[in-house]
Order: sequence, then structure tokens, then C-alpha cells
Amino acid sequence: MDHAAWQSIFLETPAFDATGAYNALLALATQPLDMTQDEAITPERLANYKAQGAGYTFLYGFERVTDKCLSELFTLAKERKALEQMECMQKGEMVNFIAGFESERRAALHTGTRDLFDNFQTAEAAAGCREASLREHEKLKKFLSEIGDQFNEMIFVGIGGSELGPRALFQSLGFYTKKNRKVYFIGNVDPDDVGQVLETADLSKALVVVISKSGTTLETATNEEFLRKAYVDKKLDPKAHFVAVTQPKTPMDNHERYRECFYLWDYIGGRYSSTSMVGGVLIGFMCGYEHFYELCRGAHDMDQVALRKDEKHNLPLLGALIGIWNRNFLHYPTVAVIPYSRMLQRFPAHLQQCDMESNGKRIDRRASATKFQTGPIIWGEPGTNAQHSFFQLIHQGTNIVPLEMIGFLQSQGDHDFEFKGTNSQEKLLSNLFAQAIALAKGQKNPNPNKLFPGNRPCSMLLARKLTPYSLGALLAYYEHKIAFQGFIWGINSFDQEGVQLGKQLADKTCNLFAASRSGEATEPFPLGQALIDIIEAV
Amino acid sequence: MDHAAWQSIFLETPAFDATGAYNALLALATQPLDMTQDEAITPERLANYKAQGAGYTFLYGFERVTDKCLSELFTLAKERKALEQMECMQKGEMVNFIAGFESERRAALHTGTRDLFDNFQTAEAAAGCREASLREHEKLKKFLSEIGDQFNEMIFVGIGGSELGPRALFQSLGFYTKKNRKVYFIGNVDPDDVGQVLETADLSKALVVVISKSGTTLETATNEEFLRKAYVDKKLDPKAHFVAVTQPKTPMDNHERYRECFYLWDYIGGRYSSTSMVGGVLIGFMCGYEHFYELCRGAHDMDQVALRKDEKHNLPLLGALIGIWNRNFLHYPTVAVIPYSRMLQRFPAHLQQCDMESNGKRIDRRASATKFQTGPIIWGEPGTNAQHSFFQLIHQGTNIVPLEMIGFLQSQGDHDFEFKGTNSQEKLLSNLFAQAIALAKGQKNPNPNKLFPGNRPCSMLLARKLTPYSLGALLAYYEHKIAFQGFIWGINSFDQEGVQLGKQLADKTCNLFAASRSGEATEPFPLGQALIDIIEAV
Repeated sequence: MDHAAWQSIFLETPAFDATGAYNALLALATQPLDMTQDEAITPERLANYKAQGAGYTFLYGFERVTDKCLSELFTLAKERKALEQMECMQKGEMVNFIAGFESERRAALHTGTRDLFDNFQTAEAAAGCREASLREHEKLKKFLSEIGDQFNEMIFVGIGGSELGPRALFQSLGFYTKKNRKVYFIGNVDPDDVGQVLETADLSKALVVVISKSGTTLETATNEEFLRKAYVDKKLDPKAHFVAVTQPKTPMDNHERYRECFYLWDYIGGRYSSTSMVGGVLIGFMCGYEHFYELCRGAHDMDQVALRKDEKHNLPLLGALIGIWNRNFLHYPTVAVIPYSRMLQRFPAHLQQCDMESNGKRIDRRASATKFQTGPIIWGEPGTNAQHSFFQLIHQGTNIVPLEMIGFLQSQGDHDFEFKGTNSQEKLLSNLFAQAIALAKGQKNPNPNKLFPGNRPCSMLLARKLTPYSLGALLAYYEHKIAFQGFIWGINSFDQEGVQLGKQLADKTCNLFAASRSGEATEPFPLGQALIDIIEAV
Repeated sequence: MDHAAWQSIFLETPAFDATGAYNALLALATQPLDMTQDEAITPERLANYKAQGAGYTFLYGFERVTDKCLSELFTLAKERKALEQMECMQKGEMVNFIAGFESERRAALHTGTRDLFDNFQTAEAAAGCREASLREHEKLKKFLSEIGDQFNEMIFVGIGGSELGPRALFQSLGFYTKKNRKVYFIGNVDPDDVGQVLETADLSKALVVVISKSGTTLETATNEEFLRKAYVDKKLDPKAHFVAVTQPKTPMDNHERYRECFYLWDYIGGRYSSTSMVGGVLIGFMCGYEHFYELCRGAHDMDQVALRKDEKHNLPLLGALIGIWNRNFLHYPTVAVIPYSRMLQRFPAHLQQCDMESNGKRIDRRASATKFQTGPIIWGEPGTNAQHSFFQLIHQGTNIVPLEMIGFLQSQGDHDFEFKGTNSQEKLLSNLFAQAIALAKGQKNPNPNKLFPGNRPCSMLLARKLTPYSLGALLAYYEHKIAFQGFIWGINSFDQEGVQLGKQLADKTCNLFAASRSGEATEPFPLGQALIDIIEAV
């Protein structure tokens, strides 16, 4: 694994809070832009504070930033060599590491999974991923053509990175879904997860995709065996129905048990795997291969945007810097992602994982505890629904929540309806725009309960229509925004050591249940036993 | 509307931050319980720090509270007359008001919608709600019996309080759903919301329920007309298919247009309306009336628990006080609700609305801006899925997120599967318990990236099984926890003035779209026009 370029970047860059820009931004943040002032937000500002790429217009005129502030944010990016780090990542250098301690020490090459078009990477690691990905794409095309219409249902067994991304993407392509195809998702070890599917699905017509990068995920292994038993009970041959997506040489890389095995590799993090075969098998089967390919093309185009050297035109970097302004200088603990599109209803859930598992870290790459905040809490629901739900707090609560709104000029489907002078898509956009203005400018009122304090920031990502292409670009926008924030904070966005302790203690608790069943002795675990005793008595 | 008891409570109680307990708690919070100490969390503590009611065991041994701290929290509840306020609410006194300014000035009588059993309220307002609710229940039973199996689909048109609660409850009762019945939800004004339903539903077999308390909600009215047009286009008579749930005398209270009109009343807030006919028509149709009745019984039983005078046994009050400890004294800005049950997957989305629309307020009942934090940001996803998503941040992020876990001894369905010595439900519970222990106690490690700092609190609500009864009790637990927090903070949890400005500006933006279509003049709105120009150019 090449590490030379990265190594020199790492040694040369000052820590986030040791940069000159950090102190300049701290000073600017004592008096951020007052958006409630009459001339603070003008049509000219909105037209200027925007950037365009891969089909998106990113609008940040409703953020509490000024030219001076943006200039310091760009300096911060330079001081932290954010762009050089992005280049290293896309080339396949070893960006997943902690210095001086045992760590995963590998690349993060999810961009390689969609590097199938012009302007491809030529560095050895990235080129290797590109070639391997091209092979998987060929395998997928062949597989889909072979199965034809043999199956009309899919049972998708995976959890976390092997579920949230592909599921959110698939749901976002509702109008691209083949008629008469249906998918069931099984993620949770909760037996009701499998149970509901067993009561509804037609196993004889179902293709079962089992996804586990390690090939050993407890929930997935349990649910797979649960399903295999159901197949055997129905005298159906699991091998005719089951396919695997895993790394080469895991226990799941086994053509005796699966009719096909698709691959991803150790340098593709679960939460960044949607454009690998993790998403490919699902979207290829449900929507058709050509739509998955378009999705990859959109992602690849945004990968290129993330390499733009001019910060003003690098959308993911701009988004990352504004997020850092809100997080570290204005001290907002959360970010709400509000897509004005019902198709994107589970996209915030994917971002929760992608962002919070990447940047929910308290240790920097030198293994020191950071003295500043890192990844925020990400949450959100679609608008206008959210306006009727939690927007009360967004407008008048005691915490300020910066919003990231997503909107489209056209609906995905062809249905629309004119009522009271506008059609529904216009009503939807009117609501998006109205919220941004209301939150920023607020409104005076002699009744304090009807007063809106304003100065609540938001940004917008706008595109023509939610297509496979623009969906791929949106996915990559967020992946790179997250990576840039990690680069700038100096944390490792590509591991997830924080999930390990819970797994160990879950095993110990499982052993207590197993021991009480088998009568055999096991390691004492008094707190686990106390909780079992309490729930057994409810 | 009776207001005497409330008025005297209001005049006599000190403000939240003027109570004696407030200052005592501030002092205690400088040194909260260190849960990472060897003997801090013991089986005895877990057995003692619990309360039981309406089928639930509430466990708070993993919160950073001590006996001293609990005693001050109970004093706080007394100083703020929290219980007396709950009594007033359940009697139907005017609890929805702001003093000295125009406000809604009415009761919040959602408990009356399930006051159908023993131990009913006798105060005039509550008794009136009880009688009206009994009439609606009779109407619902008759209606369901009349329609029989004439319909096997339901199209549920409503948004916010008319969608999130009923939808979350319905999805929680998956194994109680009648075979071959299906429901579609239309909430968003996004035309893709109706569009997806039009492409899938069989209108001729569908019962359409339109829910709007005011009878004038923009999204709902638009979507209803959109659907009515589709019925007419198919030469189907809307009146044979459409039913309304609204207040008496709204534009939707019209038997010429609906085959039946079900009622709720101005004193039932949308977000508290799930046990009114808003939930009744959906759950009655999809699961059967008897299950809705059981849900109401569970909610009513928790209503009784909320009236218990001993704070130690009043589950919603305990939950409210611990939430206030975490919010105002330990300064955690958010709360994550993590149900260890796939059935409750949308329950956190309902709580987002219920909590954040109720308590996302910056003005107290005397119309003064509070100097303390009020309602936190609520978010969450089911476990174990969440463990593979955002739990990295929960364990090792720079923000602490208190968790509210929900768990059940048994699964809802009868499916289970033994694998590696335990069944899936045992694995699920093992994960729940393991997370609580790991988060509280943490773990030392010489590798800083593998170190868990601990002292991350959680509470648990545990019950035998998720049934209609326990689901109703869970709903009411949260409704009352939220109300108690509002009572203690001294804010009005029952209005939502914060949603108004966005509506006004959305109308102004809609007028711009309409004007550009019709060529007629409209009021200038430069920022709205600038945004329209930007999106039309994407």
C-alpha cells in the first residue's frame, strides 16, 4: 500500500485547532452574520453564494457566513491540506490508520467502485479497484441476464453498511422499479424481522441476497440460517436461491452454498459500499442494471467535483467547511437533513450511519483526544412532513439546528395536480423556500409566543430531478463532505472501533442465556444476569 | 372551561429556575455519579432503581443519578406542582394557554379519548370528552361491521399529527394485521407521494380516510382532491369510498361528500390524537376494532399511572425528571429513543413530533423567554440496526447522547430460531443489555482508539410483549413524560405557533408560481422569486 504522499501530508499539517484559520474563525464567530437585518439576505447574495457540479446547485446564502468567513474557511482547508488528502484517498493511499497504534492500515477506495468512466484514476491501488469493479459489473450483468424473470421477489439480508445505503437508494428510485418486483429487507436479529417476511414472501419466487463484508456478522448469519431452514422446510434448495456479497475468502465466499458470490474488498468500508455490489445486486435486480450504472456515473462525476482545486466550486468541500463553521465555531450539536422529496425518505437514515460512524470519534490520527467537537448528530425526515412534525423546535426551540435541505425542480413520477393555482411540485418547492427564508429572517411580533427569532441557518442542494444519476451524485456529495470533515479535523473517518465493546458484552450475555438453557457453566457476568432476571420477571 | 385549580397552581408555583431544587441540582451536577467506578453499578442498584406500572418496568440504574439527586428531582416536581398540573389536564381544565397574550386557551383532553374503562374522570369537561368518545367508538364499530370485507385496501391521507402517530402504532401491530389488508399513506404534498399510490393501489377496493382536524390542511386538501380526481377519472364514486376524520363543523364535516364523518375536538391536539378516531379508523380497519380497544385500555392504564402521587412509582414523571436531569443539569442536547423491536421502527418518528412540537419552545407561560433549555432533539432507530449505524458516535463521539431503550421479553410473532445456543429474541435482548453496560462502564485500553470512556447514560422500558395493550401504554407513557416536562419547565406543551410563519411565506411563494402561470400580478416577494429563478436554472 502506497503511503508516501499521505505520510508527508500528515507530518506537515498542523492540527485543526493549531491552524491560523482556527483562531481567525473563533474571532469571527463572536459576531456571525445577523441574517435578521433588513439587507443581510438579498437576491444578489443568494445568486452569489452558490456552486454547481454534477447536476447540483449548492446554495449557502442562508448560512451565517460572510466573504471574510469563507475566506478563512478556505484557508483552513489549505492549512489542513484537505484537497491533497482527498487526492490520496481517491488514489488508494493508506488513509485508514491511527499513527503509533494498531489500526486497520488500509485504503478507503469506495470511489474505485464507480471509477468505470472517463477520467479514471491510474495509481496502482485505484486502478486495481477499478479493474476488479469492472469484473464485478460484468458478473452482475451476466447474472441478471441469466436469471431473467425466474424471480420476482428479493429478500435482502444485511445490516448497517450492508443495508442502510442500498435500501435508501433503492427506495429513492421508486419510479424506476420494475413492475411486479418486490423486495423484503431483513436486518435486525429481532425474530419479528424474519417473521414478518416469512408470513408474506413467496420463498419459491425469491432471490435471497446475503450481504456481509466479513462473512461473519452475527445478525446476518443468524437470519441467513433462519431463512435457510425455512427453505429446507418447504423442500426448496437454498443454493438455487441464495447469492452472497462478501470479501473474497470469507466463510461466505463459497460456491457450494451460493449460486453466485459477488465481491467487495477490505478497502471498501461498509457505510461506503453502496456503489459496490452491495448496492449493485439490489438495484440491478429491482430497477435494471442500466439504472445502477447511471447511479455509478453520477457518483463518479461527484468524485471529480470533489477533486476540484478551487474551493468555491468544490461542492463537498464547501459543504464540509460550512458544516465545520456550524459545528466548531457556532457550536450547533446536530444537523438535520431535510429532503423535499418523499423518495428520499430513508436517505437521512443512511447519512446517520455514514456520517456518525465515520466522524463520531474522540481521538485524532495521532491518538490524542481532540479538544474540539467532531462529527455532529445527524437526523432528519422529508419535508413537508417534517414541517408538521418537529419544525416547531427548529423555529422556536432553545437549540439551533442547521438544516441541509434537498430539492428538485421536477417530481420523479409523471403525476401532478393543479389545485388553487399551483401544482403539487410547486407547492412543495414553495414550502422548501419559505422555510429557509422564515428560519433565517424570523419575524417580530408583540406577542412573544408568535415571535420568530430567526438566525437559524440552512443550506440547499438543488437539482433538476431525482434520477439514478443525480441520486449517485447526491450519495457521493455526502460521502465526500464527510471525508473532508474527517480530513480537516484530523480524525480517521474509516474505522469504527466504537462498536466492538458492545459486541463483546453481547456475546457474554448470550452465553448466560445459552448456559441457562444447556445447564452448563459459563463465565459470571453479574450485571448481565441482573438484567436478565429483571426482564424475565416483567 | 374550568380554570380555577390550574389558576391557583399557576400563581403559586415558582419558575423552574427559581425553585430551591434547581439550585441544589446545579450543585449536584458538578459531580454526577461516575458510572465507570467499580462499584457504581451493581445488581442491587439495578434492582432498586426501577418502577413498574401498566405492564412496564422502567429501569434507571444506568442513569447518572444518586439517591440524593432523585430526592431533589422529586422536590423539583413538588415545587412545580407537576402532579397537580397532570390532574388538571386529565380533568379537562384549560391547560393550553399563555398568560397575558392571545393564545389557544383550551383543554388538552387526549386522555378523555380513552377514558372508556373503570376509574374514569368525573369532572364536567373530561366526562363530556368521555361520552363523545364512547359515541365515536360505537360509530366506528357500526361502520366497520357495515363495510365488512367490501374494501381490502386503505388509503390514509393525513400529515403530521394526523399521520405519524397512527402510522407508527399501526406498524407496531404487524402481527395483529388482518391478512390481505393493505394500507397506503399519503402525507407529503410531493406529487410523488400520491403518484406512487396511484401506480399501486386498487382504487375500486380502497377505503380512503382523509384526516384533518381543521378540515383545511393544505397538503391534505391537495392530496384529497388529487385522489378524488383519480376516482372520477376511473368512473368511481368518491362518496362511496371516502370517509373523514375532522372536528364537527369544519369544511370536511360534510355527509354529502363522505360516507361517514368521525370526530375529534379542538381540545385534542394533533400529536396527541392517536387514541381518537385518527388512530381508530386505521387500526380498526387494519387490525380489528378489538385491538384498537385494547390499545386504548393500555393507554388509559398508563394515564392512571401518571396520576400516582408517589413519584417513585409514577413512571412518566420519573422519566420526565430524569430527562430534565440530563437536559438542564448535564446539558445533553439530544435524546435517542432506541426500541429493540423492529415493530417499533417508526415510533421514534412519532415521538419526534410529539416531543419536539410540544416542548420545542423558548417562551414560558408568562410569555418570557426561558433562560434554560427546554425540549431536546429527539431521534432514534431500532436496535440492533442502530448499533451497526450510529452507535460509533454514541460510544466514542464528542457529544454524549442519553438513550431511552425499549425492550420486550418475547417477540410479537411466533417465529424464532435457535442458532449457536440462543434464539434470536435472546440475542436481541443480549444486545440491548450489553449496550447499556458498555455505555455506562466503558473500558480502559492502552490503545486510545480502542478506549471507551463510559459514563454514557441510558434508561430502559421493559415489558413482556408488544401487544395492543402494551403499545397503548407505551404511547401514553411518552405523552405524559412530555407533558410533565412541559409542566416542570413552565411552558405550554399544547400549542405550536412556530409552524405559522413558514405557512404564510409558503403561500406567498405559491402566489409567485401561480402568477407566473396566470400572468396576473401578485405581491412582490424578492427572496422567494430569487429562489424560484435559481431552481428553474438548475
